[in-house]
Amino acid sequence: MTANAPHDAVTLSLTEVEALTRSALLACGVDPRNEPAITASMVAAEAEGIHSHGLARLPTYCEHAKVGKIDGKARPVLDSPRPGLVRVDAKGGFAHPAIDFGLPALCEAVKTQGIAALAITNSYNCGVVGYHVERVAAEGFLALGFVNAPASIAPMGGTKPVFGTNPIALAVPRSGREPLVLDQSSSVVAKSEIVVHQQRGEPIPLGWALDKDGNPTSDPAAALAGGTMVPAGGYKGAGLALIVELLAAWLTGANLSIDASSFADNLGRSPRTGQFFIAIDSGALAGPNSNERLERLFGAILQQDGARLPGERRSRAKRRTAAQGVTIPNALFERLQRYAA
Amino acid sequence: MTANAPHDAVTLSLTEVEALTRSALLACGVDPRNEPAITASMVAAEAEGIHSHGLARLPTYCEHAKVGKIDGKARPVLDSPRPGLVRVDAKGGFAHPAIDFGLPALCEAVKTQGIAALAITNSYNCGVVGYHVERVAAEGFLALGFVNAPASIAPMGGTKPVFGTNPIALAVPRSGREPLVLDQSSSVVAKSEIVVHQQRGEPIPLGWALDKDGNPTSDPAAALAGGTMVPAGGYKGAGLALIVELLAAWLTGANLSIDASSFADNLGRSPRTGQFFIAIDSGALAGPNSNERLERLFGAILQQDGARLPGERRSRAKRRTAAQGVTIPNALFERLQRYAA
Repeated sequence: MTANAPHDAVTLSLTEVEALTRSALLACGVDPRNEPAITASMVAAEAEGIHSHGLARLPTYCEHAKVGKIDGKARPVLDSPRPGLVRVDAKGGFAHPAIDFGLPALCEAVKTQGIAALAITNSYNCGVVGYHVERVAAEGFLALGFVNAPASIAPMGGTKPVFGTNPIALAVPRSGREPLVLDQSSSVVAKSEIVVHQQRGEPIPLGWALDKDGNPTSDPAAALAGGTMVPAGGYKGAGLALIVELLAAWLTGANLSIDASSFADNLGRSPRTGQFFIAIDSGALAGPNSNERLERLFGAILQQDGARLPGERRSRAKRRTAAQGVTIPNALFERLQRYAA
Repeated sequence: MTANAPHDAVTLSLTEVEALTRSALLACGVDPRNEPAITASMVAAEAEGIHSHGLARLPTYCEHAKVGKIDGKARPVLDSPRPGLVRVDAKGGFAHPAIDFGLPALCEAVKTQGIAALAITNSYNCGVVGYHVERVAAEGFLALGFVNAPASIAPMGGTKPVFGTNPIALAVPRSGREPLVLDQSSSVVAKSEIVVHQQRGEPIPLGWALDKDGNPTSDPAAALAGGTMVPAGGYKGAGLALIVELLAAWLTGANLSIDASSFADNLGRSPRTGQFFIAIDSGALAGPNSNERLERLFGAILQQDGARLPGERRSRAKRRTAAQGVTIPNALFERLQRYAA
């Protein structure tokens, strides 16, 4: 913790972020075998500047562990019903230890099978989806990730929420560089953006959310009280959310988004949402000049003025936070210290 | 052919569509072993009311076979580099016989592996992607399809085309019903919509396409002359197009969209684009009550006033065309008769 932050803020090194997260989770009853996976994800989110999935979310994780909405002591169970399929039951516990438990088995399966999938069921908010697919890409495989969440997007033509903001992510290994990571929700903006505006007492731009009758609204409260998130690209975003729902929720045997309790409050039982990952060994298909072809594609993007690859902002943030640490509101810091006490 | 059509149009039964397509393709030098796959796809597109991928496209297929841009006699070659991976090289020929050649092997692989993929390389326009994934779903498997096309979408922040309109499709089996099929391009509208407006001398709505400088345009000619298609949902549509590009083009070893020759004119060599399909045995994951859970999801959509499932329009068209046939412009009919002569 250093003093070069604004008056009401605190700057923490990533090592301090890690220690604070660990202490808070353990003090709230999270099993020491489950904690490292969650902590590592928090640190990575803060390192990449994705604060909404970093320490800002930690109080909710702590609350859910304390009140038992999430079973911090649940140990994931793994099986492999087919040579290409790995399944991990998170048992109503945190998502991260379940995913971490499954990823090595996924990578083993894809090595021999060429393509393999990891289905996580009875799970919870998994933080940044890109974080998980990036780790598969770091092992040398192309990876896709699909994640469902409590319902907030209406179907084509409807007004009531059926799909979560249901993100999709892809990561692909690059020779001599970090993997390219793309991670996007099916909605125009993530739901956390609405919450942030509500907390600040600010209106939201039209086009982000609809009220409970399906009308555009600039009132974050109207969006959150039975309203819905606008899907990106209209019915096409709702279509993508349906694809993600089928893979992450239905296929994994997890709760559908309509049946999942909130990720935000303490009400209800465990959300029991799902995650679905596909890994592909590109070496078996993409040919001997695959690196050159990949960089030729990325070069066609980068040579255009103003164009950029997904993930560039995160890479810049990583360099910045490694040197300068991260700055969080003092109120959040004090709250987390209370959980850790 | 019946007379109950407008003055300048002809109504054909689906049997007549099939016969006309077959004759035209064979007369243009398509190998009799390749023709049935293309014809079946054409008939299905007309049956489902997707005229842009039906007979309206047949003159281009015939031209490409006649001038040799597509090798109508090329026979696809199949191998399986890994237990979960099937690869078919279309050898610069039509996409449909290559896909048809690979689908049974894909279905065999997914039965034992739980997940399997079919990579089609050195291929061509494959018509309606949903048609192909629907056939995998008819065999009992959840299927995803990814297809690249000559570049027409600019990357995030750029103005020059890098990605094709790159559609994604999903089909999922339903107990006692036809599979649910979702099929959507990464752009706001399919490129063929721009062509149709140009042919009619009509402006296009703002928001469909950009001119070569990246400015919104209502002029279809400006859109087609070095302009780009607007991605659905802005940068998120471009992100989805990148995902599709990596799977359908890069991973399969096919031409990147920037390297693919036009699907529309006779210039250049074979487009050699790619298709990528993933099949998953949901029975291994989704649990014993998977049908009920699937219909519960669809029910949450259908119970909302105005909401609908993807594919409903196609289902209605199928019933209509089976009874009434399809109506096409007389000029198109006469042109196809000339190819068939």
